Amino acid sequence: MKESDIKSILNRMNSGELNIDEAEKLVEEHYFGNLGFANVDHHRSRRQGFPEVIFGQNKTTVQIVRIAEEIVKHESIVLATRLSQDSLDAMSARFPDGERNDIARTFVVGMPEPDIELTHGTILIVSAGTSDLPVAEEAVVTARAMKNDVRSLYDVGVAGIHRLLARRNIIMSASCIIVVAGMEGALASVVGGLVQVPVIACPTSVGYGASFQGLAALLTMLNSCASGISVVNIDNGFGAGYAAALINRTGKI
Amino acid sequence: MKESDIKSILNRMNSGELNIDEAEKLVEEHYFGNLGFANVDHHRSRRQGFPEVIFGQNKTTVQIVRIAEEIVKHESIVLATRLSQDSLDAMSARFPDGERNDIARTFVVGMPEPDIELTHGTILIVSAGTSDLPVAEEAVVTARAMKNDVRSLYDVGVAGIHRLLARRNIIMSASCIIVVAGMEGALASVVGGLVQVPVIACPTSVGYGASFQGLAALLTMLNSCASGISVVNIDNGFGAGYAAALINRTGKI
Amino acid sequence: MKESDIKSILNRMNSGELNIDEAEKLVEEHYFGNLGFANVDHHRSRRQGFPEVIFGQNKTTVQIVRIAEEIVKHESIVLATRLSQDSLDAMSARFPDGERNDIARTFVVGMPEPDIELTHGTILIVSAGTSDLPVAEEAVVTARAMKNDVRSLYDVGVAGIHRLLARRNIIMSASCIIVVAGMEGALASVVGGLVQVPVIACPTSVGYGASFQGLAALLTMLNSCASGISVVNIDNGFGAGYAAALINRTGKI
Amino acid sequence: MKESDIKSILNRMNSGELNIDEAEKLVEEHYFGNLGFANVDHHRSRRQGFPEVIFGQNKTTVQIVRIAEEIVKHESIVLATRLSQDSLDAMSARFPDGERNDIARTFVVGMPEPDIELTHGTILIVSAGTSDLPVAEEAVVTARAMKNDVRSLYDVGVAGIHRLLARRNIIMSASCIIVVAGMEGALASVVGGLVQVPVIACPTSVGYGASFQGLAALLTMLNSCASGISVVNIDNGFGAGYAAALINRTGKI
Amino acid sequence: MKESDIKSILNRMNSGELNIDEAEKLVEEHYFGNLGFANVDHHRSRRQGFPEVIFGQNKTTVQIVRIAEEIVKHESIVLATRLSQDSLDAMSARFPDGERNDIARTFVVGMPEPDIELTHGTILIVSAGTSDLPVAEEAVVTARAMKNDVRSLYDVGVAGIHRLLARRNIIMSASCIIVVAGMEGALASVVGGLVQVPVIACPTSVGYGASFQGLAALLTMLNSCASGISVVNIDNGFGAGYAAALINRTGKI
Amino acid sequence: MKESDIKSILNRMNSGELNIDEAEKLVEEHYFGNLGFANVDHHRSRRQGFPEVIFGQNKTTVQIVRIAEEIVKHESIVLATRLSQDSLDAMSARFPDGERNDIARTFVVGMPEPDIELTHGTILIVSAGTSDLPVAEEAVVTARAMKNDVRSLYDVGVAGIHRLLARRNIIMSASCIIVVAGMEGALASVVGGLVQVPVIACPTSVGYGASFQGLAALLTMLNSCASGISVVNIDNGFGAGYAAALINRTGKI
Amino acid sequence: MKESDIKSILNRMNSGELNIDEAEKLVEEHYFGNLGFANVDHHRSRRQGFPEVIFGQNKTTVQIVRIAEEIVKHESIVLATRLSQDSLDAMSARFPDGERNDIARTFVVGMPEPDIELTHGTILIVSAGTSDLPVAEEAVVTARAMKNDVRSLYDVGVAGIHRLLARRNIIMSASCIIVVAGMEGALASVVGGLVQVPVIACPTSVGYGASFQGLAALLTMLNSCASGISVVNIDNGFGAGYAAALINRTGKI
Amino acid sequence: MKESDIKSILNRMNSGELNIDEAEKLVEEHYFGNLGFANVDHHRSRRQGFPEVIFGQNKTTVQIVRIAEEIVKHESIVLATRLSQDSLDAMSARFPDGERNDIARTFVVGMPEPDIELTHGTILIVSAGTSDLPVAEEAVVTARAMKNDVRSLYDVGVAGIHRLLARRNIIMSASCIIVVAGMEGALASVVGGLVQVPVIACPTSVGYGASFQGLAALLTMLNSCASGISVVNIDNGFGAGYAAALINRTGKI
Repeated sequence: MKESDIKSILNRMNSGELNIDEAEKLVEEHYFGNLGFANVDHHRSRRQGFPEVIFGQNKTTVQIVRIAEEIVKHESIVLATRLSQDSLDAMSARFPDGERNDIARTFVVGMPEPDIELTHGTILIVSAGTSDLPVAEEAVVTARAMKNDVRSLYDVGVAGIHRLLARRNIIMSASCIIVVAGMEGALASVVGGLVQVPVIACPTSVGYGASFQGLAALLTMLNSCASGISVVNIDNGFGAGYAAALINRTGKI
Repeated sequence: MKESDIKSILNRMNSGELNIDEAEKLVEEHYFGNLGFANVDHHRSRRQGFPEVIFGQNKTTVQIVRIAEEIVKHESIVLATRLSQDSLDAMSARFPDGERNDIARTFVVGMPEPDIELTHGTILIVSAGTSDLPVAEEAVVTARAMKNDVRSLYDVGVAGIHRLLARRNIIMSASCIIVVAGMEGALASVVGGLVQVPVIACPTSVGYGASFQGLAALLTMLNSCASGISVVNIDNGFGAGYAAALINRTGKI
Repeated sequence: MKESDIKSILNRMNSGELNIDEAEKLVEEHYFGNLGFANVDHHRSRRQGFPEVIFGQNKTTVQIVRIAEEIVKHESIVLATRLSQDSLDAMSARFPDGERNDIARTFVVGMPEPDIELTHGTILIVSAGTSDLPVAEEAVVTARAMKNDVRSLYDVGVAGIHRLLARRNIIMSASCIIVVAGMEGALASVVGGLVQVPVIACPTSVGYGASFQGLAALLTMLNSCASGISVVNIDNGFGAGYAAALINRTGKI
Repeated sequence: MKESDIKSILNRMNSGELNIDEAEKLVEEHYFGNLGFANVDHHRSRRQGFPEVIFGQNKTTVQIVRIAEEIVKHESIVLATRLSQDSLDAMSARFPDGERNDIARTFVVGMPEPDIELTHGTILIVSAGTSDLPVAEEAVVTARAMKNDVRSLYDVGVAGIHRLLARRNIIMSASCIIVVAGMEGALASVVGGLVQVPVIACPTSVGYGASFQGLAALLTMLNSCASGISVVNIDNGFGAGYAAALINRTGKI
Repeated sequence: MKESDIKSILNRMNSGELNIDEAEKLVEEHYFGNLGFANVDHHRSRRQGFPEVIFGQNKTTVQIVRIAEEIVKHESIVLATRLSQDSLDAMSARFPDGERNDIARTFVVGMPEPDIELTHGTILIVSAGTSDLPVAEEAVVTARAMKNDVRSLYDVGVAGIHRLLARRNIIMSASCIIVVAGMEGALASVVGGLVQVPVIACPTSVGYGASFQGLAALLTMLNSCASGISVVNIDNGFGAGYAAALINRTGKI
Repeated sequence: MKESDIKSILNRMNSGELNIDEAEKLVEEHYFGNLGFANVDHHRSRRQGFPEVIFGQNKTTVQIVRIAEEIVKHESIVLATRLSQDSLDAMSARFPDGERNDIARTFVVGMPEPDIELTHGTILIVSAGTSDLPVAEEAVVTARAMKNDVRSLYDVGVAGIHRLLARRNIIMSASCIIVVAGMEGALASVVGGLVQVPVIACPTSVGYGASFQGLAALLTMLNSCASGISVVNIDNGFGAGYAAALINRTGKI
Repeated sequence: MKESDIKSILNRMNSGELNIDEAEKLVEEHYFGNLGFANVDHHRSRRQGFPEVIFGQNKTTVQIVRIAEEIVKHESIVLATRLSQDSLDAMSARFPDGERNDIARTFVVGMPEPDIELTHGTILIVSAGTSDLPVAEEAVVTARAMKNDVRSLYDVGVAGIHRLLARRNIIMSASCIIVVAGMEGALASVVGGLVQVPVIACPTSVGYGASFQGLAALLTMLNSCASGISVVNIDNGFGAGYAAALINRTGKI
Repeated sequence: MKESDIKSILNRMNSGELNIDEAEKLVEEHYFGNLGFANVDHHRSRRQGFPEVIFGQNKTTVQIVRIAEEIVKHESIVLATRLSQDSLDAMSARFPDGERNDIARTFVVGMPEPDIELTHGTILIVSAGTSDLPVAEEAVVTARAMKNDVRSLYDVGVAGIHRLLARRNIIMSASCIIVVAGMEGALASVVGGLVQVPVIACPTSVGYGASFQGLAALLTMLNSCASGISVVNIDNGFGAGYAAALINRTGKI
């Protein structure tokens, strides 16, 4: 709500036109699309620069489609993540023009073009192995949905470091880098040591035994001796993409 | 080394002027200031935009002063962190114009003015309690050493959320925010939910019992449901400040 | 057993009418309904103010129905939790007047009306996200089964704190509050900082990666810097509801 | 701030008398006593029923006394916990009428009498061993500071359960019980199984080896099969006392 | 091998009749029944007082039956644990006189009668809840297979401690007690505090949330303040029964 | 209390001679020696076969001596463990005939001779390295205090297994064995595989790095593939000695 | 790339024949076989002495066959591990001459004969129980694929240590030993104490309860008091075999 | 003992010249130097290729010197590790020709020259930072004590990977490499990816916060995606040096 809206409501309260319950209801209607099982947060795009994202895990296909329909009324873009095969199919049927990504398990209605005015440059997503692809792609889709130009460099893990060094040019030209890696997650330190742009490290649960479902990679990244690295939750490709997108528009919003 | 330097060395190798050992030695001299106990990385300021930082923990006072003297030969700034009382005194004596911060346990030779051209705006450091001050101040010093305009908002923990909301104006005007919090670390989620700029969350080891020396705050921050938050190691004020500084110059270097 | 019963048995022992084995058997019959696989604790409603609750996990449908039949002989209410679809169906068939809740996975025979004499006011259940609903509903059912007036406020997570603040009136009017939240669980601290009534925090296993099946939320809540919060086990909606109900009758029983 | 105060400020903003910065400053002065190193939260006693408590750990003696002096200006009671020997001495010197407890490491200025109108009955603190005393006493002092009648039952651990059962009368007559125990923490389950009033379980770090500084007792208490138990952080006697005090005035504030 | 056997082999080596490989082969044949996939340890009943036990987990039905056939050639008893439904059926078919226990998932060929000469008295198995039955029954079967008189007392968890105290006579008359409990495992401490015979505590993985698959009960039991309790692995009913059986023949073998 | 005592008190209650408070007081006096800071449990020697043991950790020297004086009034033996140098000195001064062990940090007043009638045979304490000595000696003292004949075999760790095998005769002749080992704790499995008597495994906190203060040894012992091993807490030499002593009198009390 | 290749490319850059992008492309083609979803690392056999290995977990059958086809173009051997039944079938069909191992879940195209010139002697794989077979066999296949003579000794766990000691001759004759063990993993220490050759310890996830999926065995092995043992990840038979193969050619490549 | 010695003793037993106790004593004297507090293992140098090493932690200076004096009687070399300043001084005084290393905290009597016949080549020790020096130096001393030619490369952590790559020649020429690193430990993966010789990874406890005293580095190394790496305990420089020395003589002993 803008300051003028708040003042208007307060003045109406002041004048006795509204009691406190009516005022509250006005605020509520302004902010939320209440679907019974969910309060869709219409205010978020204004508060945070991007509408509420549908986190598909633990939601039914029906709930996901309903929330998407509610958001699409007020926003030009809908991003849904962690969708089951079933939910992907239902979204494709309901929004035939949407962009579906089966590896990332995402669906986007109204995917925008990159906006060069809004962003400082290219976001690069680097991943260590083929098994890290679903997380890496979730980051790609998220960053693109937030109007970024995105490039990716896959399967360049640290065990064959020449694969990485051979692509140094690509790495050097990004304005922000996301490193996605499971197992020991050392790739984040190596990339972080090469560049002077912000690096978001995203551990994945890829591995076995003492990887403890991503804990090893997470600890590696948190303890990185390369400066300027910050870390998101295990398998949180969305969070990495979102943080990179905010970084890539620093000072512009 | 610039591409021309490498080519020159390679040509001299090609022509037989240098053998491979001599070539290696030339590279080594170019890059490192070898002190016996440490390879000072002179190349880092070009590679990463800031000279090597002296991490004082586990180093003797003599070593710290010697490394500082080595760096100061090539760079306009020296930043030393995690200094003991002893090392702080020795640095003050050796570099009387340096800036000493006893709470942050840092010392800076050649602290620069904020550079508005290089940066997108103000970095804000928000902390939950008075016990978090040393970590918060380490972040402040680091970000300032990297030429940022820095503001701080201390003791605004989430248990009295009105203290935070009352300063919403300050929060909204930053281009990048660092949240420093121990105990349950919930402050990061609350701040992250209010803004649309990048948020770096820095857990601290403040707490007792089931805080497990900062693990509770770390997990809270990694699992934050607020989008766009990324996390650094427990008590890593330096890392938070460094990451924020890189973010605040995105697209400028 | 009342004091008079014990004295009576002891007197009969004293007089030689009963030997110690016969006395023991009398006590046993008084207290337990022995079904072979379970000792139904008939004494509990007198000792603890509520009859034994059927914890359905790891019990077969047949066992659950049998125990319910045993309890219903002595008590006006039966509460069963953690029921499988199968057990819910069997209970519905056996007790057609019972109240079935498929989200909470509970079944209640003889659900009472709220008892205003017995209780101090309304119990409010606040939850962070739609995925926390099963746990929140288990708390609702439990508190209602113990004769409380219960209200709920769902999907008001801390990432959009205005959703919570907009309902401050509802929050302020409760006599006891249960906060149900997964992921980082910060909601408990925020609610705890707003009110002066007892707050029971119930972490859920909702989340992924470093949420470690609810451990992150549990630690957050245990370390909360808001005073007056106490915590129950992960996903223990029943325990939260039960504790809140005891609190809401403090000094009345 | 009362609703009328807010309206008054908003009207002055509306009329142009105040700009937004001046309004913010007014709010700030109303709520906080800013000491530079701390924002004393004057609003808390109205919001939470008790003034801000001084958590002495990690604070200097000077800071503690200063904060106490600030609080005492606005409130009739000051409670300080986790005080060092040094801070206890300084507080005694500064507030000669205060109540000092060397076992609990607490200091109270203005300790009140129990208030029978405000509370439902007696709070009982039960502890397992002599080593748990400091935590138990912190709970006692806190509950008394909040105007409760408090009784205690010490050294009645579960290994000699007859010691506990012999005091069943005392246990049965409390309106709320706090159980303080380290090592395996089983006492909470036993007490919880005997009574029908709210039980707050407070694990302590007493033990060695696989007690893991209180983790064992914490897990025991969280998993208690006795209904109605809720748990606070390890060694958090203050939190247990505070929660019990809120419970003991349920429906009265 | 008896000392005389070893000497005989060594003398034959000494005299040149056997070379070292032939000697080794003789030893091997004496000790093992080599089935290719397993070395059945025929020596164990002499060395440890009971033949090798078949641990069914991770073994195929065919392997289990084959090993049982091999053991039965040399021993009067075969005990197999952790059998799948499939393996139970196959064992029943192959050894129609064997004793099958579907709750314990065990099968015994040649179950003996209790041997009063060999043992000091009755082994009592106490369990906390119905869900602990499979583990408790595994202990019962194992102790019986080792010729003990076994009694059991089920569903006497600590939340209703009168259920336990009512059976004090049974508890007092055992010569060794096994306590099987999940969740918080406090039952071991309570029983251990009542008796002066050895108590074996066996934690189970029954529980949820912060029980962490039996870790909570394990830690509780290891930290028990009752003296004389020792602990076996989570869900290790076999180990508890075996240890109790050894204890119950102390000084007799 | 004997059954006749209870009946007598109840009869006096019945006849009105005693009210419930007076009856309670009588029971209390019978059972406890109340020192203010501790309830000395006079009933324990009858209930558990050994008087209450003074656990010195976290107790002051004054408290320890006072409790010892209280126990010595009713019992022929006092055992104190985990004594500081200071407490050892004070006990030596107060009880000049007591037996002091500086390695075990124990003090015994009235150390008895081994009682061959009461026990089945010799208890053997085996330890892996010299650093495990304090724990091993605590077990020795405890078992001796409970009238056992005790032998020890030190520094026979598994890395030089011939040291152990060379003493096979000693091992084979014990009626119960305690294995004390830190680091990886494998000694328990090796000894357990050699014998058919009960083995108590006691992990120690000796080690570094991934020994995690004894956790590695504890887990090794809990997972031992040798049957009949049960485990006590890390560094709990007292518990191991106590459990072994109970085992060594199985069927005799 | 050989030094001459690099110089050639650099000279062509120097002379203007190649720009930096063309040079990079040449390098890339030389090193990688880009399949879109994977960068097959053709350089690895030269850099590391063995071509890239296909880690089948998380890869589709189609991907696995495609990568194998790509490798087989340049190399004389292909090793694939962690294959599903499905992938094993597909590889058998595509490479009918390959060697398939259903226990190890491996497939090898072009399995070589042992190379006595390249290796120092025999690699011995020792395993504790039948359940450890899949991991042990993965190590066998890997070491054989790297041209080693391999022997194995299975089911010789430490609970029946005579089984191990009886095979001392075999153990003493190996040039490098791999010990594969789950549960408590003590076998590594016993073997390590017997020999003076390098021992690679490989923990397995075999066990239950407090084995925590192999963590117990891992910690045991890391803390082994036997010198010269080094450890690989839980269930990492491939890594153990690979490390042993490198060791067995020390100084030869 | 050689086979002939054993046969001789057995023949004397056979002929009745020795009884079993006398035979045992002979064996004992042969193998151990019993100092009361320690069994010095004289057999180890024959069994394991190196005499028993004195692990100084938890031993008194007197014990250390006494054990050294005992070993020196039978062996040409004594290696003592983890010595306090005090023990270092005492050893220097007692063995003036010994080699003392204050960083490694080691002392060697009779340090040998490298033996080119016995070893395959040079052992290289690579470390990440100056704080890792004590552990790296412990490895150096150990490997040298076992007659290896040792080189070291310090302070070449992965954050400035060019420092490492610049020394590729040194790395490529080693026959076995030890990587010592704390914090995130990524250096092991990078080195492991460059070479085809065995790599021993040794994590150190250097770091803070989420390094958890070396756990992060340990997990990183165990999960390394570079093949052929095996790992020793945190801070176990001795173990790393010992394993490398065994590797470097593979097939030679």
